[in-house]
Amino acid sequence: MYYNDRVLKTKPHLITRSLIPENQETPIHFLEDSETPSTMTFRRNHFIYPDISIQAYFLTITGSVKTPVILHYNQITSMPSQTVTALVECSGNKRAYFEPKVFGEQWTEGAISQGTWKGVPLSYLLSFTGINEGAREIVFLGGDSGEKKGLHVHFERSLPLEKALVSNVIVAWEHNQKPLSPKHGFPFRLIVPGWYGMASVKWLKTIRVIDTQFSGPFQTDDYVYYPFMDQDKDSVPVTSNHVNSVIQQPLDRQILKPGQHEVTGIAWTGEGIITSVEISLDNGATWKSASLQNNPHKYQWMKWSYSHVFERNNEYTIKIRAFDSNGHSQPNKAFWNRKGYGYNEISQIIIQIE
Amino acid sequence: MYYNDRVLKTKPHLITRSLIPENQETPIHFLEDSETPSTMTFRRNHFIYPDISIQAYFLTITGSVKTPVILHYNQITSMPSQTVTALVECSGNKRAYFEPKVFGEQWTEGAISQGTWKGVPLSYLLSFTGINEGAREIVFLGGDSGEKKGLHVHFERSLPLEKALVSNVIVAWEHNQKPLSPKHGFPFRLIVPGWYGMASVKWLKTIRVIDTQFSGPFQTDDYVYYPFMDQDKDSVPVTSNHVNSVIQQPLDRQILKPGQHEVTGIAWTGEGIITSVEISLDNGATWKSASLQNNPHKYQWMKWSYSHVFERNNEYTIKIRAFDSNGHSQPNKAFWNRKGYGYNEISQIIIQIE
Repeated sequence: MYYNDRVLKTKPHLITRSLIPENQETPIHFLEDSETPSTMTFRRNHFIYPDISIQAYFLTITGSVKTPVILHYNQITSMPSQTVTALVECSGNKRAYFEPKVFGEQWTEGAISQGTWKGVPLSYLLSFTGINEGAREIVFLGGDSGEKKGLHVHFERSLPLEKALVSNVIVAWEHNQKPLSPKHGFPFRLIVPGWYGMASVKWLKTIRVIDTQFSGPFQTDDYVYYPFMDQDKDSVPVTSNHVNSVIQQPLDRQILKPGQHEVTGIAWTGEGIITSVEISLDNGATWKSASLQNNPHKYQWMKWSYSHVFERNNEYTIKIRAFDSNGHSQPNKAFWNRKGYGYNEISQIIIQIE
Repeated sequence: MYYNDRVLKTKPHLITRSLIPENQETPIHFLEDSETPSTMTFRRNHFIYPDISIQAYFLTITGSVKTPVILHYNQITSMPSQTVTALVECSGNKRAYFEPKVFGEQWTEGAISQGTWKGVPLSYLLSFTGINEGAREIVFLGGDSGEKKGLHVHFERSLPLEKALVSNVIVAWEHNQKPLSPKHGFPFRLIVPGWYGMASVKWLKTIRVIDTQFSGPFQTDDYVYYPFMDQDKDSVPVTSNHVNSVIQQPLDRQILKPGQHEVTGIAWTGEGIITSVEISLDNGATWKSASLQNNPHKYQWMKWSYSHVFERNNEYTIKIRAFDSNGHSQPNKAFWNRKGYGYNEISQIIIQIE
């Protein structure tokens, strides 16, 4: 045993929220790259992992189509492919911050990751089958299933036709230049840039075109904004990501030395692009522009930073608000809803200079 | 690529609080064993990891002693050894829960681990040097050092003679049947059962007997209870662990199926043993005894459990309070102190049955 000049590496880990099923968040404060490694990509499951049997290699397209087809993995991965770099964010991201608190996985800020997804556009796949007149929605059935309120159900979600046929909605088989990992949907995962992660169905088995409005439990029970504690009125389905941000460094309640420090983080939105990020170092009294660190790309987060000389024996309440090209910005107060989706209140940390 | 019937393992990870220096907590909710694996043992550092050079293999005993000595690793590890199974808990454990919030690492409930430590009793080591009359404290210098408030300092802590000479205070070289890992103090770590972790100095280099009261920055600035926000009066040093508990399962704000579920967790105290653990399922209105799962051992946590049939469409506020043989129990309200030590308020979760 001899550790002369040994460098002890330190590294962040997924943050475990539950193991059965597996729910772990990305250690977003400790990752600087724009591409979140697959092993550090957040895991959000409703059920235990599905067995991936030989049937999983076949994708069925059926329902209100002219010619139903069953396509094999080798056929699909030989099709013209498209590569999309996009973030995926769970709609429950930041749920832990709602006041009053709500039930469900207590995600803090790491139910978000960004990756490079390669696959075939859904619209290209549907060109093989055609779509009947009167088609309204497309339903995506995942291989994951289990009990929900006493019933055995699959994870299943629909998209309206107009969103489903946008060219960057793809059936992906690669994530970060490798085949999808079994935990992230191998062999196929739908990727729906701009919408919260529940739309990006993993272990995709069946694509079904329907003439009606889909009403599975993950469509009309979960993933719905319910504004009231005790009644379901005025509910609205969860769709695209809200404009949002994370302050990556410093950390909330961190004690720092006096002097220059950089405040860094990311900002993102669902549709549109991030146009500016503002920072306040005085609890919202005055605001300045943070520096944007890359060109804006739709469906990708924007890195931002702001350098400041912090004075000894002071406390700073630092706030961040992001603005997008659709005129949206982070609100002073999050829109409370019973199941805890879409939290995007102005980001805040308090630090102490010692 | 073919994942037929593949079992996808899920496992918990350390929870990263900071990387420079490394501070990571044990995923206490997801570990059932009484011996926390070394890789899952919480890491609390004030500085970056020290280089472990050839000098580290020598332990110096000096100061107010009759015969100062320098002992080599091989000499120490050949001495009569004692094995102690004990928990180590950071005094900042649960700091995140203080209201008003305080600065510092925002530990939730996992700045605690339990291990088996093998080493030589400190009292045996001191029998080689003798102790001068008038000796009051023993100072332990760790190999870790860095800047604190503009000064370069080592991590250094003292114990009063009467605590230091208790037979289970050991200079350990093994942790869980293996040599101490470099992240947990290799080659030597002081283990002080019953006191918060700051006393269990890692990378131990020098033991110094003194006739005075030690006043290093980790003795009289940090690791002191300051009851007031703006003044230092009535401050008290942090010493032994407060009686405390963690509800491991279910998790706070978890949604569960109706039916029988087990509420499980651990309880511990500093000096003395756990005598009972009480549970309330109705927000503290009524209390019952939880089942204790092992015989009480000083310095080790007690596993407890309580099985209950939970009813559909209900919410349960579950509280746990532990009692020890010194007549202490968890308070209704934690003792707030400016640096956030010793939080031990009655443990609570709220769950929903769907």
